[in-house]
Amino acid sequence: MITLGANRYGKAEIRLVHVRRDGERHEIRDLNVSVALSGDMEAVHLTGDNAAVLPTDSQKNAVYALARKHGVAAPEDFAVVLARHFVDAQATIHRARVGIEEYAWDRIPVTGHSFVRRGQEVRTARVTHSAAGTHIISGLRDMTVLNSTGSEFWGYAKDEYTTLAETRDRVLATTVHAEWRHRGQTADWDDSYAGVRRALLEAFAGTHSLSLQQTLYAMGRQVLTAHGEEICEVRLTMPNKHHFAVDLAPFGLDNPNEVFYAADRPYGLIEGTVRDDDSAPAEEAW
Amino acid sequence: MITLGANRYGKAEIRLVHVRRDGERHEIRDLNVSVALSGDMEAVHLTGDNAAVLPTDSQKNAVYALARKHGVAAPEDFAVVLARHFVDAQATIHRARVGIEEYAWDRIPVTGHSFVRRGQEVRTARVTHSAAGTHIISGLRDMTVLNSTGSEFWGYAKDEYTTLAETRDRVLATTVHAEWRHRGQTADWDDSYAGVRRALLEAFAGTHSLSLQQTLYAMGRQVLTAHGEEICEVRLTMPNKHHFAVDLAPFGLDNPNEVFYAADRPYGLIEGTVRDDDSAPAEEAW
Amino acid sequence: MITLGANRYGKAEIRLVHVRRDGERHEIRDLNVSVALSGDMEAVHLTGDNAAVLPTDSQKNAVYALARKHGVAAPEDFAVVLARHFVDAQATIHRARVGIEEYAWDRIPVTGHSFVRRGQEVRTARVTHSAAGTHIISGLRDMTVLNSTGSEFWGYAKDEYTTLAETRDRVLATTVHAEWRHRGQTADWDDSYAGVRRALLEAFAGTHSLSLQQTLYAMGRQVLTAHGEEICEVRLTMPNKHHFAVDLAPFGLDNPNEVFYAADRPYGLIEGTVRDDDSAPAEEAW
Amino acid sequence: MITLGANRYGKAEIRLVHVRRDGERHEIRDLNVSVALSGDMEAVHLTGDNAAVLPTDSQKNAVYALARKHGVAAPEDFAVVLARHFVDAQATIHRARVGIEEYAWDRIPVTGHSFVRRGQEVRTARVTHSAAGTHIISGLRDMTVLNSTGSEFWGYAKDEYTTLAETRDRVLATTVHAEWRHRGQTADWDDSYAGVRRALLEAFAGTHSLSLQQTLYAMGRQVLTAHGEEICEVRLTMPNKHHFAVDLAPFGLDNPNEVFYAADRPYGLIEGTVRDDDSAPAEEAW
Repeated sequence: MITLGANRYGKAEIRLVHVRRDGERHEIRDLNVSVALSGDMEAVHLTGDNAAVLPTDSQKNAVYALARKHGVAAPEDFAVVLARHFVDAQATIHRARVGIEEYAWDRIPVTGHSFVRRGQEVRTARVTHSAAGTHIISGLRDMTVLNSTGSEFWGYAKDEYTTLAETRDRVLATTVHAEWRHRGQTADWDDSYAGVRRALLEAFAGTHSLSLQQTLYAMGRQVLTAHGEEICEVRLTMPNKHHFAVDLAPFGLDNPNEVFYAADRPYGLIEGTVRDDDSAPAEEAW
Repeated sequence: MITLGANRYGKAEIRLVHVRRDGERHEIRDLNVSVALSGDMEAVHLTGDNAAVLPTDSQKNAVYALARKHGVAAPEDFAVVLARHFVDAQATIHRARVGIEEYAWDRIPVTGHSFVRRGQEVRTARVTHSAAGTHIISGLRDMTVLNSTGSEFWGYAKDEYTTLAETRDRVLATTVHAEWRHRGQTADWDDSYAGVRRALLEAFAGTHSLSLQQTLYAMGRQVLTAHGEEICEVRLTMPNKHHFAVDLAPFGLDNPNEVFYAADRPYGLIEGTVRDDDSAPAEEAW
Repeated sequence: MITLGANRYGKAEIRLVHVRRDGERHEIRDLNVSVALSGDMEAVHLTGDNAAVLPTDSQKNAVYALARKHGVAAPEDFAVVLARHFVDAQATIHRARVGIEEYAWDRIPVTGHSFVRRGQEVRTARVTHSAAGTHIISGLRDMTVLNSTGSEFWGYAKDEYTTLAETRDRVLATTVHAEWRHRGQTADWDDSYAGVRRALLEAFAGTHSLSLQQTLYAMGRQVLTAHGEEICEVRLTMPNKHHFAVDLAPFGLDNPNEVFYAADRPYGLIEGTVRDDDSAPAEEAW
Repeated sequence: MITLGANRYGKAEIRLVHVRRDGERHEIRDLNVSVALSGDMEAVHLTGDNAAVLPTDSQKNAVYALARKHGVAAPEDFAVVLARHFVDAQATIHRARVGIEEYAWDRIPVTGHSFVRRGQEVRTARVTHSAAGTHIISGLRDMTVLNSTGSEFWGYAKDEYTTLAETRDRVLATTVHAEWRHRGQTADWDDSYAGVRRALLEAFAGTHSLSLQQTLYAMGRQVLTAHGEEICEVRLTMPNKHHFAVDLAPFGLDNPNEVFYAADRPYGLIEGTVRDDDSAPAEEAW
C-alpha cells in the first residue's frame, strides 16, 4: 500500500547577522540557520490540511525574534534555544533539527566596529531535539590544508588497471569536512571549537602519512584523545586534492617536487568515522 | 576505546564522455561517475598499510576501460557493471557504491554528430552491490517547475511569530530532487526514466495544491501508481522557491498576481518519502 | 592630482517574474535585471552629498512598477523602457545601462499555467541610453555544444614547449557566449533571437573545423550573413572544453575516439569579434 | 563588408603550485594563470590555417617550465616573465596578457612544510606586454568587510518610486574588488600588496560614511596618497551587501540595530576609478 514515510520540513538558510554593542566595541555573529521539523504531518501530505503546519515563515521570524530575546552566543547555544523552542511551542512538532553555519570575522584594528571576513573554514553546529533527548554536533568544512612533503603512497593493491607509480614523497592536500558529537549539552563551545580545530590541524601536520586514510584516522583519534571527556565520535570527509608533479623532461628540465599541477576532478574521496566504542551510537543525532 | 567506525573511499567525479558511432550517426553519453568502496580497511587507517587498498587512480582507469569493453548504455546499467567489477575483482573490497550523474544532449539537426547540451535536469543513478545483493536507485535533480496559479496556503498553525497572510492564489515553484528505488535489477532504464519524469511533471502540474507537502506526496504517489510494479520507494526533496507578489500600492498600482519577486534565501525545504509499505525497507541502498 | 575617474552605480540582479494571464493560458517572463547609472556624481564621491543620487532601492521599485505599467515583452523592449525612464526621470542621471538575463521555461502540457525551466542557454540583453542615443545588444551565454567528429587540429606553430600531437579527428566542444549589436532600436526581438540562435548552432554544426578560431569566425559570419540588415557586430567568447581520448593501451584496449575524459581546467579560451566594417564602431554600447 | 575585429586566444586557468624548499622550511605559491595572446591571427579565423598559432597546450607547458627555470616570486614578477616570453619567442604573437590569481596559505606551526589555506581575499595580477611597453596591474577580490556602525544614508534624490527610509546608522558591508595600476615595472610586489591592502582596509574602517560612493573614493584616494609614487590609478567595484535591520515590532520587540537579515539579491553595485590625472591614461593596460 502506498504510504507516507520519513518526512520533515522547515525554513532553510536564514541569514542572521547579530551585533552586540558593548560601548564602542562591537561583537558580531554571522550565521546561516536552517530549521527542519517533524511530527504530525500525515494530514498535510495526504489532504493538504495545514492545521498541524507551523509556516516556515513563522520559523524564520522566530529565529530573528529569539536572537533578540536571548542574544546569540555560540552557534551550538543558539541552535539549542531554537530546537527546544519549536518542540515546546508547537504540540504537533515532535522533533526539531537546527543546523547552523557560522562565518568568522576578524577585526580591522582601527575602530571597534570594523571587520574583515576571515574566509578559511566555515564552522557548523547541528542540534536535534525531541522528547528522547538533545544531541549536539559541532563541525567545520572548507578547511583546506597541505603538506608539501612527509607523505608517501606505495605498497597498495594492484590490478589490471593499475598504472600509478609508487611514491615516497608527494604533496598531500585535502579540504577537511569534520563533525564531532558531544557527550553532553553544555560547554564553552567557542573554546571547544578552537581546541578541536587545533587538534585537527596538528594531527594533519604532525602525521608522516602513508595514506590519506591514515591521516584521517590520526586526525579523528587526536580529537578524541585531547577532548575525549566531551566528545565521543568524529566523522570526517576528506577529498584527496591531487597535486601532480609536472613532467618537465620533454623540456630538458628536472622537477624535484617543485612544480605541481593542482587538479580539479576526479579526486579521491576518503570518508571515515573515529569513535569511542564504549559510548552508545546515536544515528538520530546526525 | 578509540576505534574505527564506518568508512569508505573511492574516486569521485570521473568525467566520462562516451561516443558510439553508428556510421554517420553518433550517440553520446555524458557522465560523472563516483565510486565508493568499503571492506578490509582497518590496517590502512591504523598503520598506513595499503595492501588492501586498490588505488583510486586504478578505479578511474577501470571506469574508462570498462566503458570501452562494455559500452555505456543507461547509467544504471553501467553502474551495475562497475559496482560488480570492484567487488568481484578485489578480495578486500566487500561493498561498492557507484553514483552517476548524466547530462543530456539534444541533436543539432544539421549533422549526425552535432549536439547541444539540454540543460534542465540532471539524471542520476546509484547502485550498491555486495554479497548481500544489488540495489538500484534512479533519480533526477535540478528540475525546476512552477505553477503560476492553482496553489493556496491557508489554515495553518499560528503562533506568536506568525505574520504571514493566508492566500488562495499564489505561485508555487520548486526545484525537484527525486530518487526512486527499483524492486529489480533489470529494466529499460531510459524508458523507465522517461516515464517517472513524466509522472512527476504531470502530478506537479495536475495537483491543485493546498501545500507543497501535498504536492510532494502527490508526485511520489503518482510515480508508485504508474510504475508500482518496478518501483517501491520515492524520496523527494523540494525547496519552496518563494515568489512574492510585489506590493505596488505605494506607487498607486494594483498587482493582480502579475509581478513577482523571486527570492533566493531563506526558502522553505520540504523532504518526504512515499513508499509501498508491503515491500521491505532498504536503508543500505541509499 | 587625485581625481575621480569613470564611475557608475545601480541596483544589480533584480529578480523579476512576470505572469501575463490570458484567461486559462498564462505567459511568464523570468528576468534578472541590473541597472547602472552615471551622471553628476562628483559630490557624492567627494563629500558624501547624496542630492544627485537616486537610491538603488528606488531603481528596484521602478523595475517592478514599470513591469506592471508596461508589461514585459522581450527583454530588449523592457530594457529600453527602463533605460529611458532613468535618464528622463532624473536630471542628474545622464546615462543608463540596463542588463537583463532571461531564463526560458517550457510548458508542461497539462494545464495552461504549469512550466518547467528549460535550462540550456541564458538569453541576455543590454541597452545603453543617453542623450547621444540608444544602443541595443542581444546575446546568450552557457549554450554548450559539441561535435563528436568533423574537427581537426594540425599545422600549428611549434616551439620548445610543444608536445601536443596533431590530430585529424577530435571532439570539439565549447560553451558559447555571444553578443550581437543591432543597427536599430525596434525589432521582433523574440524572432530575431531565435534566428540568431539558429544561425550560431547551424554554423557550429556545419563547419568542418580546422581550429576553434575558424569555427568562431564562421559562427559570427553566419549571423551577419543571415541577419546583416539588422545586426552589425558579433562578439564571441568560446572556451575550448577539452575532451581527451583516454589512452587505453596499458589495458590492452584500443580507443577509436570512443572514450573521452572531459577536462575542467585549464581550457583554451578563444575570443573574437566579427563585424561589418562599413558600420561605425560603438564601444560605448558595450 | 564582414571582417574580423579584435581577437585573442590562450590557455586559461592553469593551476600551478610551486614549492620552494629551503631545507626544512618550504615556501609555496598557489597560482591560477591565464594567458591571452594576439597577433597575426587573420588566417586561422578565415581559413583555419594554424601556422601562426602557438597551441594553448604549449602555453600551458611553458608556464610550468618557466616556473621551474625562473622560480615563482610574486605573481607580478612571474606574469612579466611569461608575457615577455610569449611575445619574444613567437614572431606571430605581438601582444600578451597574463592574468594571475594567487591563493594565500598560512603556516601550521608544527612543521616547516604544513599549510592551511588562508581563505579571505584572492590576490590578482595582470600584465600586458607588447612592443609598445609593459603594464602591471595588481589587485584583490573577494575581500568582504563590514562596519557595524558609522554609516548613514540620507538626503538622496526622491522620485515617485522612492520608499526607502533615511537612516543615520546602518550596517555597511561590501566585498571589495580593487585593481591598481603601477607607474613602473619593478617593485617589491609583496610589500606593495601588503601596503595597498592595509590602506584599503584602513580607509574602509576609518571613513564615517554618508554613502558607499564616498567610502569607495576614500579607499582609492588613500591608496594613491600612501603609494602615489608607485601607483597612478585605482579601480574599485563594490557591491552594497545590504544588511536590513529586522522589524521585530510585530513580536513586541525593539531592534536597536542588533538583529539583521543579510540579503543576497538584489544588491547595490558601486563602481569607480580614482586616479592621478597628471599621469597618462592607459586603457590598453586593463
